[in-house]
Amino acid sequence: MREFFSNVSAIRYEGPRSKNSLSFKYYDPEERIGDKKMKDHLRFAVAFWHTFGFRGADLFGSENMIRPWDNFTDPMERAKAKVDAAFEFFEKLGVRYFCFHDRDIAPEGETLGETNRNLDEITRYIKRLMNGSDVKCLWGTANLFKDPIYTHGAATSCNVDVFARAAAQVKKAMEVTLELGGQNFVFWGGREGYETLLNTDMRFELDNYARFLHMAVEYAREIGFTGQLLIEPKPKEPMKHQYDFDVATTLAFLKNYDLDRYFKLNIEANHATLGGHTFQHELRYARINDKLGSIDINQGDPLLGWDVDRFPTDVYSTTLAMYEVLKNGGIEPGGFNFDAKVRRPSFEPVDLFYAHIAGMDACAMGLKIAHRLLEDKVLDNFIEERYASYRDGIGLKIASGEINFRDLERYAMEHEHIQNSSGRQEMLEAVLNEYMFEQQRS
Amino acid sequence: MREFFSNVSAIRYEGPRSKNSLSFKYYDPEERIGDKKMKDHLRFAVAFWHTFGFRGADLFGSENMIRPWDNFTDPMERAKAKVDAAFEFFEKLGVRYFCFHDRDIAPEGETLGETNRNLDEITRYIKRLMNGSDVKCLWGTANLFKDPIYTHGAATSCNVDVFARAAAQVKKAMEVTLELGGQNFVFWGGREGYETLLNTDMRFELDNYARFLHMAVEYAREIGFTGQLLIEPKPKEPMKHQYDFDVATTLAFLKNYDLDRYFKLNIEANHATLGGHTFQHELRYARINDKLGSIDINQGDPLLGWDVDRFPTDVYSTTLAMYEVLKNGGIEPGGFNFDAKVRRPSFEPVDLFYAHIAGMDACAMGLKIAHRLLEDKVLDNFIEERYASYRDGIGLKIASGEINFRDLERYAMEHEHIQNSSGRQEMLEAVLNEYMFEQQRS
Amino acid sequence: MREFFSNVSAIRYEGPRSKNSLSFKYYDPEERIGDKKMKDHLRFAVAFWHTFGFRGADLFGSENMIRPWDNFTDPMERAKAKVDAAFEFFEKLGVRYFCFHDRDIAPEGETLGETNRNLDEITRYIKRLMNGSDVKCLWGTANLFKDPIYTHGAATSCNVDVFARAAAQVKKAMEVTLELGGQNFVFWGGREGYETLLNTDMRFELDNYARFLHMAVEYAREIGFTGQLLIEPKPKEPMKHQYDFDVATTLAFLKNYDLDRYFKLNIEANHATLGGHTFQHELRYARINDKLGSIDINQGDPLLGWDVDRFPTDVYSTTLAMYEVLKNGGIEPGGFNFDAKVRRPSFEPVDLFYAHIAGMDACAMGLKIAHRLLEDKVLDNFIEERYASYRDGIGLKIASGEINFRDLERYAMEHEHIQNSSGRQEMLEAVLNEYMFEQQRS
Amino acid sequence: MREFFSNVSAIRYEGPRSKNSLSFKYYDPEERIGDKKMKDHLRFAVAFWHTFGFRGADLFGSENMIRPWDNFTDPMERAKAKVDAAFEFFEKLGVRYFCFHDRDIAPEGETLGETNRNLDEITRYIKRLMNGSDVKCLWGTANLFKDPIYTHGAATSCNVDVFARAAAQVKKAMEVTLELGGQNFVFWGGREGYETLLNTDMRFELDNYARFLHMAVEYAREIGFTGQLLIEPKPKEPMKHQYDFDVATTLAFLKNYDLDRYFKLNIEANHATLGGHTFQHELRYARINDKLGSIDINQGDPLLGWDVDRFPTDVYSTTLAMYEVLKNGGIEPGGFNFDAKVRRPSFEPVDLFYAHIAGMDACAMGLKIAHRLLEDKVLDNFIEERYASYRDGIGLKIASGEINFRDLERYAMEHEHIQNSSGRQEMLEAVLNEYMFEQQRS
Repeated sequence: MREFFSNVSAIRYEGPRSKNSLSFKYYDPEERIGDKKMKDHLRFAVAFWHTFGFRGADLFGSENMIRPWDNFTDPMERAKAKVDAAFEFFEKLGVRYFCFHDRDIAPEGETLGETNRNLDEITRYIKRLMNGSDVKCLWGTANLFKDPIYTHGAATSCNVDVFARAAAQVKKAMEVTLELGGQNFVFWGGREGYETLLNTDMRFELDNYARFLHMAVEYAREIGFTGQLLIEPKPKEPMKHQYDFDVATTLAFLKNYDLDRYFKLNIEANHATLGGHTFQHELRYARINDKLGSIDINQGDPLLGWDVDRFPTDVYSTTLAMYEVLKNGGIEPGGFNFDAKVRRPSFEPVDLFYAHIAGMDACAMGLKIAHRLLEDKVLDNFIEERYASYRDGIGLKIASGEINFRDLERYAMEHEHIQNSSGRQEMLEAVLNEYMFEQQRS
Repeated sequence: MREFFSNVSAIRYEGPRSKNSLSFKYYDPEERIGDKKMKDHLRFAVAFWHTFGFRGADLFGSENMIRPWDNFTDPMERAKAKVDAAFEFFEKLGVRYFCFHDRDIAPEGETLGETNRNLDEITRYIKRLMNGSDVKCLWGTANLFKDPIYTHGAATSCNVDVFARAAAQVKKAMEVTLELGGQNFVFWGGREGYETLLNTDMRFELDNYARFLHMAVEYAREIGFTGQLLIEPKPKEPMKHQYDFDVATTLAFLKNYDLDRYFKLNIEANHATLGGHTFQHELRYARINDKLGSIDINQGDPLLGWDVDRFPTDVYSTTLAMYEVLKNGGIEPGGFNFDAKVRRPSFEPVDLFYAHIAGMDACAMGLKIAHRLLEDKVLDNFIEERYASYRDGIGLKIASGEINFRDLERYAMEHEHIQNSSGRQEMLEAVLNEYMFEQQRS
Repeated sequence: MREFFSNVSAIRYEGPRSKNSLSFKYYDPEERIGDKKMKDHLRFAVAFWHTFGFRGADLFGSENMIRPWDNFTDPMERAKAKVDAAFEFFEKLGVRYFCFHDRDIAPEGETLGETNRNLDEITRYIKRLMNGSDVKCLWGTANLFKDPIYTHGAATSCNVDVFARAAAQVKKAMEVTLELGGQNFVFWGGREGYETLLNTDMRFELDNYARFLHMAVEYAREIGFTGQLLIEPKPKEPMKHQYDFDVATTLAFLKNYDLDRYFKLNIEANHATLGGHTFQHELRYARINDKLGSIDINQGDPLLGWDVDRFPTDVYSTTLAMYEVLKNGGIEPGGFNFDAKVRRPSFEPVDLFYAHIAGMDACAMGLKIAHRLLEDKVLDNFIEERYASYRDGIGLKIASGEINFRDLERYAMEHEHIQNSSGRQEMLEAVLNEYMFEQQRS
Repeated sequence: MREFFSNVSAIRYEGPRSKNSLSFKYYDPEERIGDKKMKDHLRFAVAFWHTFGFRGADLFGSENMIRPWDNFTDPMERAKAKVDAAFEFFEKLGVRYFCFHDRDIAPEGETLGETNRNLDEITRYIKRLMNGSDVKCLWGTANLFKDPIYTHGAATSCNVDVFARAAAQVKKAMEVTLELGGQNFVFWGGREGYETLLNTDMRFELDNYARFLHMAVEYAREIGFTGQLLIEPKPKEPMKHQYDFDVATTLAFLKNYDLDRYFKLNIEANHATLGGHTFQHELRYARINDKLGSIDINQGDPLLGWDVDRFPTDVYSTTLAMYEVLKNGGIEPGGFNFDAKVRRPSFEPVDLFYAHIAGMDACAMGLKIAHRLLEDKVLDNFIEERYASYRDGIGLKIASGEINFRDLERYAMEHEHIQNSSGRQEMLEAVLNEYMFEQQRS
């Protein structure tokens, strides 16, 4: 196998005192955190599109990243070189999962048939490389947003031919994901939304979207794909409004159309903040509704109104995310997909390593801190105490639904003087800081 | 009855050429729009709290508005004077509905019992005034956010005594609303949310919130309140996060807890935009889910991140809102509540008239424009044509659920060449402008 | 000359009752508004890049717009076809100005020399077409943001070679603009800013930016370019932060480096709102500082956090913009450049006409309304009255700087009772609506 | 002296392993960081208004905080009790500075004269307490936003009587600040802005604002106040738009009116983010313009659009702030004023301690991390290398202004091939994390 990152050798854990930028300071895959090794908690995945496909273009600038695996004229050769580069990267970085869209891995042909054959050939190529490694497919998906035919949506397009094409594409992507042993299949409806309500039949579009997903569920069963099905919420961009706005909106949709038993959610940090929520909020809301399926671990810029997809380096954010994940008992078969891209000025291939290292270390720190917070029950104990009044007496009656407004009024009349206790937010924030900045000692 | 707005006489419709600022230019209650008079389309309501209770305080400034009905030492006398002022205002403005919180109309006493007796007395006083007029109660609600006891929430408080008090308060507010013939009862959960997840058991709080609402439904049935029950979504403020974030989130909650058959929504323009949606979006999403119950008609400032509650004067916004309302077949028994306050620098009593006139005229214009858009079917025809491919052939099969991924793939393979049509957004925006600026001619 | 828009004939003014979507309803170039014809007030310009260069790509989708002038293999032939299409469009639309970046009009060659020769050839080609028409160049500019070399900035790059290239490019663009009789030259520093402060010497970058602009001023003088020099503020995007954040920031920069006498500003609606200001605010602030040079007339979406560059159709916005322009005595030699692009779903060539018509009509309405507001002095009279206390007595002393804190304290002690008057915002908003919706009658 | 916080004893530094919530974990006043003790770097000040005056009211809720120093009927007694509580708090917390508005410390009387006498009496009372302690006044200011007379602004009011009153108030507040040995005097123009441009003469208001500040400068000189004069930028709230929008806008204003030599800026974290900037950005921009005077150290919530004034606990933010401060050579005579309030649910007096401790510890951590970053020159070295091309050859000529566009074009023609280097943002973010999470070891 040719080598594309010849100036980078395998990244090792060297601990926080190392001065080697190409080493992990905190992510030690074999370190045991609670009942699992760090690598089993943190099922990291590399995103094919951003890591091997992003070339630095933005809306005002053209591509500025030169990737050696692009130096092949033949599209299929180029696709295979990209796969080679990917597996070299996975190995050197020590990441055991990848995620992909159908169109990331294989070039389109003249016809859908040819496109599918290309996909099959590259799929076989990937499988061969997987055989010689412990790299697995976390999830696959179909890209239903880039092609001009999806201008008005895919499953929600006003054009029936587009709906059919989208169906054909998801069908094939699901087959390929199955073939690669993918543990999940993701739906991100980047074009399922609208630009203006003036020309939109929202009800009909949502109905169609649901029909599409029901067919997908049926087809998954038919071919024996037993992986988890995931929807990825995002509020806007590229569309003015997207139907899977946030976790709650997606949940409402799933329930509305009797789809909720089939799907969990793939939650992205930057999509959460674009929707007006903290990352932790979206994870928490999904968790308590048993919908926390997988995570796109990245980071937004709170002062920028678009999807910046930065690598996650804010340890507050990773800590609180890992807290929800641990509370959820992990997210297997989901994982942590780096849906993140290097900044445009970080255009050198080695920056891909720096960026993933930065993100993996930040997640590792977050995991360790969250684990200690949970082990010491610092928040749990506070919360248990805070809601204690619901554990007996009238509180228990409320919690068990054995009381009504009349009884409650009588109780209220007899308990005029109400005494609350402080929520102690600032103290808890200080406690969080203590755990964050003390972690390395333990 | 004493007169509080003696310098203002009844506001009349004088048409767009009038130079009298204290007249309606567009709102002509008797004008027939389609099958109803304008006054029956636009079931305007005045909000007791903002119009008669707001004194201009903001977070950096103290009260700057002097209201003559405050010039009474005795709290009950003051409360009655406020009611007098309100009815004088309703009559002079020609508005036939009002909305209130329990605490807007009557002063609190030393005990809950005394508070309730105060409420009863004022309720009788209001009823007497209602008898002599055609003013009705659009909706009542309980203020569960102002009192310090609600610091940690009401139905979602961590303190069982607070839950009980909130129940008692809603029980009484519902009785009073029934007594006043209120056509709806509203729940706005201003404190049902959290400041920080560090101390919050979100799942338990949502469970309790649902229990509370179930008890409210049960109690309404028990006392024979047959009005509509409404939840009013808002994403944040005063809390960092509120549970009824937006229409979709509220719908998810209602479905989650089998409450959706009992509630519709009261949608506020400014809450929509704080949640990242257009007002029309929230109305549309509610409408297609049969949840459009009533409207708090006001306006935000898209560059300000808090609830500014301006009077609605943007005719684009009122037009698109009225469009959804007409599509909904009206919103009766709901209405259009001016949940809007005069700007702090508009501190004179007469500004209350100017502000309501501005809002009523903007709504009247919106109604007329929307009606003509619908009558001419300019948008409907465009949309019908746009989705035409779903009305026969494979499109019809999709729409009727008679097809699967395999068939769709086959179809897609046979229909490689896909042709979309333009969505014509700019043309439609020009059409909207034509209807907006041409209305007076018709 | 070949015809590219053969299905569209010249757009005529047909008045508001016309049902022809390809006609002006409000823009009547020959109509006299005050002392000038509408076409002389509204010096509209078409933007080469968006109108002839935009192909519909966004960050998640590839190009979806097919333009007939692209059907030429040879780059120079293609460039000439684009110019032909542009002039056909200008003529049919009746727009008399255009704006361009150097890279919009001519393809890059292998070397800077060849690129410049290409530019010269196309410039001659354009001049020939200009000769046969009354189309003029409103402004030219250099594209210092698209090429990968500008990744770290142009004048503010950390790389001296980039600074030199940017200088060479501006030099040439200025020569070409002069050759085309351009009435202004614009600087938009899309890459002059930073992605992260961690690697940025902000002070040095600003110094360099100023040095660059001083050289530009000097070179303009040297070659006899007497047009207006303009800086275009924008807060962010593509960079995380741009140095010309808004009008005030740009003014501070110009003053800091003794550049303020040489530059005015080119103000864009969507950049204003991205910066947290209304469009009117930025125009007003520039106007009172004598810096209102020219306008990029478009429209943002207040709920989207990126530069959407919609065509301006909100007549509130165009009215208040025209109000500032009229107050400024016009903006000649500046104009109204449609820095706007059709929405991606409006991908047909005819949408370019619909979009410009929508924008031109909205500006024409805005102009007429603003003119009537000014003629009737409705706002001026209110303001004059509002500040009347500064026209004599102690007010006059303050306004003429003849008083100090001691005297003011004495006065304050003697005038304890202070009486303010209402600001009447709601009444004024109603008045604005009256003028807006009554315009067609006059 | 009576004791108000009897359940809290003096807060000591106990180090990061302490489990005592009422101790400092990181703030050790006597620890030497570089050339100064921590307490001399971190000139912390407690804000009179938030810490002793805030009672928990928000726009939807009434006061929920009971403070023992309010238990006095007589206003002057209450004011003195508040001062006692403040000094007890300063001592126990070990903070050596305080900040105040005139109206925070003394009650208003019937007349301005009486109000001033009250102020004098409390000033004497404070001075007496200062005598027995090492507590100093960091800055004073006049509250020109709370009183209804300031509804339309203070120095920018349309009413000359208000201008005079504001002058009298600033005059007195300056005298009192001088009397208390205040090291700075601050102007925050909370009402200097507008609600709507429809009724606003922006130019005249800015002129008046400048006249007012010139008089203030003159009066300071007259009375021998040699402290630093500071303006505090804020973009909005309470007004729709405030004139001192951000650092750059304020700088433009100061330069416009020849005021820049007299004023520096007081920069608040939450105001920075409301204005669309990072806190570090505002500090950096002020620093390189020699305008970094003092700091209001707090924290916003990036998802909330109003001034939340949280206590600063995000160590990323404090680290980058301290970095700018150290680069500035400190900010003496300025300091770090906790313009922060406890969350409404943290309503117990002891929460004031928790909150300040959380903030002081976060600042101490930030200081230590920033110091180590600077000592190791990790960022400085990277930046020096990054801009190296400007230190000789043509770069030096640019930097020293000895070159023009012609020469640069010639150079560019000869240097066609341009090679940039990566900006390494992700690597630098990882380095920042390494320094942040390793600090305690050193």
